[in-house]
Amino acid sequence: MEQRLSLITLGVADMARARRFYENGLGWTAQTAMDEVCFYELRPGFGLALFLRHELEKDAKRPIDGTFSGITLALNERCKADVDATFAQAEAAGATITKPPEDAAWGGYSGYFSDPDGHTWEVAWNPQCVIGEDGSTTFGAG
Amino acid sequence: MEQRLSLITLGVADMARARRFYENGLGWTAQTAMDEVCFYELRPGFGLALFLRHELEKDAKRPIDGTFSGITLALNERCKADVDATFAQAEAAGATITKPPEDAAWGGYSGYFSDPDGHTWEVAWNPQCVIGEDGSTTFGAG
Repeated sequence: MEQRLSLITLGVADMARARRFYENGLGWTAQTAMDEVCFYELRPGFGLALFLRHELEKDAKRPIDGTFSGITLALNERCKADVDATFAQAEAAGATITKPPEDAAWGGYSGYFSDPDGHTWEVAWNPQCVIGEDGSTTFGAG
Repeated sequence: MEQRLSLITLGVADMARARRFYENGLGWTAQTAMDEVCFYELRPGFGLALFLRHELEKDAKRPIDGTFSGITLALNERCKADVDATFAQAEAAGATITKPPEDAAWGGYSGYFSDPDGHTWEVAWNPQCVIGEDGSTTFGAG
């Protein structure tokens, strides 16, 4: 698994409230915004998503409880085979696979595992996503 | 507050177990490792730290409970005044200030706030840290 990160997702209870905080309050600009999810490009080249908590729970197949506060870290791979390879490696390393990789409604391929402390990683392939030579992840560029 | 990120911190219960997972299991290489904290450089230009949970609780002045699973996101600023400015902005935006910025034992200046969903941000100035033109954060380079 590369030492690289593509996306941080924050589960939020109220999208309007969360967007007011990050956009009106902190001055951020959204790249794309939908009812359940809103993406921001962060320097030096990855993304941060606000995602409704109950949708994130469904997507990650994991309740947001005492060990999962609703933050996931994501690594976007260059192809589906690389997703499977990283999952095999993570499982061998002792990860808990909470969602084996599967085709996603948004057109990609994604699964989730947690590390020994319960921190949640998503490993995904997204056809809309470009991984640069410098390790940057650009969304919506495919 | 810039749309930029410098560091992700994962609270861990057992440093040896966590390092075995990320290093022996996933193949990562540590940049620097101490008893309580271990840093990794992630592409495209920021850091991930493993930090003993009880030390992170003390540092963030926040228990790791149902709303705080022990992940913090950090923005490193270029000077102390920028830390204060970001805190003023965050407070005006409705953030909960859990630790106002203060001089840190490691030689920098740091505080923590949480967003409306309880997600924890650290905003810091670290004299060992260089912020590149591209928004990358390089640790231990000062």
